[in-house]
Amino acid sequence: MIIVIKNGCDKKQLDNLTSWIEKQGLRIDRSNGENTQILGLVGDTSKVDVDLIQSLDIVESVKRIQEPYKLANRKFHPEDTIVDVAGHKFGGNNFQIIAGPCSVENEKQIIGIANAVKAAGANILRGGAFKPRTSPYAFQGLGGDGLKLLLKAKEETGMPICTELMAEKYLDLFEDVDIIQIGARNMQNFDLLKTVGKTKKPILLKRGLANTIQEWLMSAEYIMSEGNPNVILCERGIRTFEPYTRNTLDLSAIPLLRDLTHLPVIVDPSHASGIAKLVAPMSLAAVGAGTDGLIIEVHNDPPHALCDGAQSLRPEQFEDLVKKIDVMLPLVNRERK
Amino acid sequence: MIIVIKNGCDKKQLDNLTSWIEKQGLRIDRSNGENTQILGLVGDTSKVDVDLIQSLDIVESVKRIQEPYKLANRKFHPEDTIVDVAGHKFGGNNFQIIAGPCSVENEKQIIGIANAVKAAGANILRGGAFKPRTSPYAFQGLGGDGLKLLLKAKEETGMPICTELMAEKYLDLFEDVDIIQIGARNMQNFDLLKTVGKTKKPILLKRGLANTIQEWLMSAEYIMSEGNPNVILCERGIRTFEPYTRNTLDLSAIPLLRDLTHLPVIVDPSHASGIAKLVAPMSLAAVGAGTDGLIIEVHNDPPHALCDGAQSLRPEQFEDLVKKIDVMLPLVNRERK
Amino acid sequence: MIIVIKNGCDKKQLDNLTSWIEKQGLRIDRSNGENTQILGLVGDTSKVDVDLIQSLDIVESVKRIQEPYKLANRKFHPEDTIVDVAGHKFGGNNFQIIAGPCSVENEKQIIGIANAVKAAGANILRGGAFKPRTSPYAFQGLGGDGLKLLLKAKEETGMPICTELMAEKYLDLFEDVDIIQIGARNMQNFDLLKTVGKTKKPILLKRGLANTIQEWLMSAEYIMSEGNPNVILCERGIRTFEPYTRNTLDLSAIPLLRDLTHLPVIVDPSHASGIAKLVAPMSLAAVGAGTDGLIIEVHNDPPHALCDGAQSLRPEQFEDLVKKIDVMLPLVNRERK
Amino acid sequence: MIIVIKNGCDKKQLDNLTSWIEKQGLRIDRSNGENTQILGLVGDTSKVDVDLIQSLDIVESVKRIQEPYKLANRKFHPEDTIVDVAGHKFGGNNFQIIAGPCSVENEKQIIGIANAVKAAGANILRGGAFKPRTSPYAFQGLGGDGLKLLLKAKEETGMPICTELMAEKYLDLFEDVDIIQIGARNMQNFDLLKTVGKTKKPILLKRGLANTIQEWLMSAEYIMSEGNPNVILCERGIRTFEPYTRNTLDLSAIPLLRDLTHLPVIVDPSHASGIAKLVAPMSLAAVGAGTDGLIIEVHNDPPHALCDGAQSLRPEQFEDLVKKIDVMLPLVNRERK
Repeated sequence: MIIVIKNGCDKKQLDNLTSWIEKQGLRIDRSNGENTQILGLVGDTSKVDVDLIQSLDIVESVKRIQEPYKLANRKFHPEDTIVDVAGHKFGGNNFQIIAGPCSVENEKQIIGIANAVKAAGANILRGGAFKPRTSPYAFQGLGGDGLKLLLKAKEETGMPICTELMAEKYLDLFEDVDIIQIGARNMQNFDLLKTVGKTKKPILLKRGLANTIQEWLMSAEYIMSEGNPNVILCERGIRTFEPYTRNTLDLSAIPLLRDLTHLPVIVDPSHASGIAKLVAPMSLAAVGAGTDGLIIEVHNDPPHALCDGAQSLRPEQFEDLVKKIDVMLPLVNRERK
Repeated sequence: MIIVIKNGCDKKQLDNLTSWIEKQGLRIDRSNGENTQILGLVGDTSKVDVDLIQSLDIVESVKRIQEPYKLANRKFHPEDTIVDVAGHKFGGNNFQIIAGPCSVENEKQIIGIANAVKAAGANILRGGAFKPRTSPYAFQGLGGDGLKLLLKAKEETGMPICTELMAEKYLDLFEDVDIIQIGARNMQNFDLLKTVGKTKKPILLKRGLANTIQEWLMSAEYIMSEGNPNVILCERGIRTFEPYTRNTLDLSAIPLLRDLTHLPVIVDPSHASGIAKLVAPMSLAAVGAGTDGLIIEVHNDPPHALCDGAQSLRPEQFEDLVKKIDVMLPLVNRERK
Repeated sequence: MIIVIKNGCDKKQLDNLTSWIEKQGLRIDRSNGENTQILGLVGDTSKVDVDLIQSLDIVESVKRIQEPYKLANRKFHPEDTIVDVAGHKFGGNNFQIIAGPCSVENEKQIIGIANAVKAAGANILRGGAFKPRTSPYAFQGLGGDGLKLLLKAKEETGMPICTELMAEKYLDLFEDVDIIQIGARNMQNFDLLKTVGKTKKPILLKRGLANTIQEWLMSAEYIMSEGNPNVILCERGIRTFEPYTRNTLDLSAIPLLRDLTHLPVIVDPSHASGIAKLVAPMSLAAVGAGTDGLIIEVHNDPPHALCDGAQSLRPEQFEDLVKKIDVMLPLVNRERK
Repeated sequence: MIIVIKNGCDKKQLDNLTSWIEKQGLRIDRSNGENTQILGLVGDTSKVDVDLIQSLDIVESVKRIQEPYKLANRKFHPEDTIVDVAGHKFGGNNFQIIAGPCSVENEKQIIGIANAVKAAGANILRGGAFKPRTSPYAFQGLGGDGLKLLLKAKEETGMPICTELMAEKYLDLFEDVDIIQIGARNMQNFDLLKTVGKTKKPILLKRGLANTIQEWLMSAEYIMSEGNPNVILCERGIRTFEPYTRNTLDLSAIPLLRDLTHLPVIVDPSHASGIAKLVAPMSLAAVGAGTDGLIIEVHNDPPHALCDGAQSLRPEQFEDLVKKIDVMLPLVNRERK
């Protein structure tokens, strides 16, 4: 950690600061510039409160050098973490496709889509039972009943399932869920992170809409520091000023995270834009950027349908996309198994 | 709601869409332009799923005309809501100042600051017991013990208290808390919103770091639709590209909200910037913009102190600020009582 | 264009507005909702000033239905525009790679890199002569002398050249430049856009750091409305809150633009992140998203080098990248010729 | 400048880097942490290229300690700069109000508004002759003819005038203009900055829509380094994700700039939101934040009018606002003279 001290600062305040730092067991290297004095803190600074130091009158600025995350940090764990989901591996040179509908609607729908996406090449089934909705008046998902339908689809198809947990009180229902998803809006719901950190289940941690890569890794750290190393990161778009898309998919996060962490990273191309026709190109783009997998919404029209041929990705479009992905995988040293 | 239909769309799909809309009890007014056809939906569209319609092949774009919030909407409730906190009123021409430390640390500290801010003119005491922290390694607050200290300060000073609830499981501890704060990171923790909606307590709903004004009002709607009308909105800064400040305080939200909603709106000038010397100017700015109150961090150095004279706002600076605010209030038709 | 009128508006003001609209040659379709009245304007609204109407007391909101760009609009020009640069085509199923150094430094450097990137498969040479730099103290490029060196490299290698024009006064020097680049910071330098619109040269129009896709197309429209149809759009990253990367490459803009415009769109993966190791993965990502080409910085160490092996992309890394791109192109229906 | 070196870096590359740094006349202070080595560069680093160093393989990150601006930096120029505009002073404890219409339309309009705003208390007249418009089809201003009308209004009323320069080629026309405005979209039009830097005229430099405070000061530095110290900064809103307002007025920039620079800073509350009713509250907010002045659009209905009573701020509303501002000024140690 680097602390830049203001020019002409009060010597007594500076002495107070340096002796406080040394009491935390840190060494101080000093560098005196023409207009500033710089303190370099050497040692484990992960518990030092940057905001507190920044608020001091004599401090001009503070910069962390050491990343504040440890368990998620590739520096201290150079090999890729492999998260095993019922035999399907995330990380290393593996590539996984999770697919399924936005919401579970009824038995016929979820089993129909499960069979369709399995036939097209998906390994894991997704489906929303508890749905985070901006409006209290919008459909909130079938809840516990939706979860039962999803488990039935798991039984029928043999596919592991991935679904979102919205609050601690529902955790008991998730015993047979294979991947617990923490949604973007809960990425900094720290109590919920601690709760899933106490399980050993694979956790799909979506990036918050306005969260930096470092904050995202700190949320992974919350889960890992409770004892659960099975975290899969999922980029799903960030908030920007561009109004055409709901969110802007930040694919550069993929190669960046490759350096910063050993955790697997996947991409959700369906929720970022909110535009169905962008799913296929952004999926291929994600593969090019080096993702470890994709989580894709697939709709099965007939049982749902508002209008014929309406929503996409339909199973046949999904199948076509999977074929293209398979051609690309060798280029990025990945394989689907 | 306006639905713009693509040129040359499939007639059967369009018929499906219009008959589905009519089944929802809505009337359709049509307007045919040169290159597009527009459907105007007349009736209560608050439950219509914009995303679903947007995803249809034949739809070019969808725009809500009617706001999706009803209970929070000034159109349907023209008079200001007055939220009464143990006799201190938010809304109308009232102005309230909530003040206190970031975290409750010990009895001497919290009672000392409580007395100091009361003497300087604050009506309500704030203090963090459960602290949302980006890092699992940072101090997470004293929790339940912190809450007890805060209640002790309430008893000693007679000031109502405001503190943050981070998860449903802690709610029982909040029985004697006067204002329950929902933090920025939980603004879209919908289960938590429903939980506090089932109480009758005043709820301080902070704006999420990347949430639009409309999403914020929808979160207020979650609380109100469960039966609790006592919502106070609190602007505390949004995420932007500017790195000097931690967040950018969006003061234009204040006059905008005045038109959109009847709920009181206050401003937190301390957390937006993370820079102590900005608190006083941004407090005056907030008053100019028309806020119904302020929630300000005040530190009481001696018991805490890293370095003498370090952190601010110290009580004497706070007192000076309150005096300036009092001069401004008549200009914006507000008074402190 | 849709105009939402406020409830209970002054009838005389509304009559003034509607008669003013009709005087512009537009038809009005009306739809009366429960709380609002909606005016649908039918006809050519591209010259109607949205801001002016929005500012009226009786108006709640205004929404354009018809895009404000015409010449760049795919609706009125369904086939892809093909921009021909000395026989190298942008658009359709063509794919082009522009490569070269950030700045032209000296003859040996520019000719060395030109030969290297040509051998690796690039068709067009880039190089900065006039450099837009945030600081007046930073190297501003060799200017006219740099341009001469670039023309020399063109002569030696036969490669067309692409370089940035920063002000109208330098235009005479650009007679033999094959593609004139308008930089991100000049995307809304409207006088400069008009100036290059009066030439017939291919214009590489970079997206501004904070500009929406629609504003970008409006800047293309400025060039086209002066008579120059040869516009190539170039996505190069937008400003977001994420601090790891300098800018966030918005690859979803590629498939979106495919629908909105007939103009070719390429991607600059080098400037968005400012991080060399992201260039290769983000180039493949751009290909997956459907780009019509790439503009890539390639460095030639020996003449420049600070430190051995320092900067990238070096020619051998570029060559490796081109090979991977060539494997991907058939997947996205593109070919390099 | 702090350079963080990667763990286990190539020693020869590091030696190359350090000897290159020392050749620039800089001293290196080293600090060795557990996982990183830190180089502290002491001396004038304003010309060191951060991007170049950042691109080196052995470098983990680079941080400037010394601000890259010198002439605009308060550290090297502690007293406020006072910019004198025909006797009206910006900076220190002065407060100025610039007012007038968005566009100059005709002689009657501009002289009418000039008289009205002068009577209400404005000291300087604004008015657009050359208008930067997103669309080539929108009204681009009266150009040179508009400027003549503005000069006529100056003659009639004795008010100095402020108007925007969009390109170097129009500079000759600006001889009698008192303040040359550089618009937000030209904040990084570096050739234009150099051009106005060669005059001695007061320059109103608007902040770019997506530009950081540091970039803004670097653009001021461009003007100052050409010899013109008369720069007035103008905050006018930045791009954020919030769709209600066109831009988000960043008032925290005001107190921040007070520390960073000695230049006067004013606020434009009219363009940020695009919403007339926000002008008055955001003007008072700006005063609270400590602005040195305001630039406000005032419309004079009758000659323009779409609809009676339509647009604002009308002169009578402006007059009312000025009265409120005058009450506030003593609170922020400002006076209008």
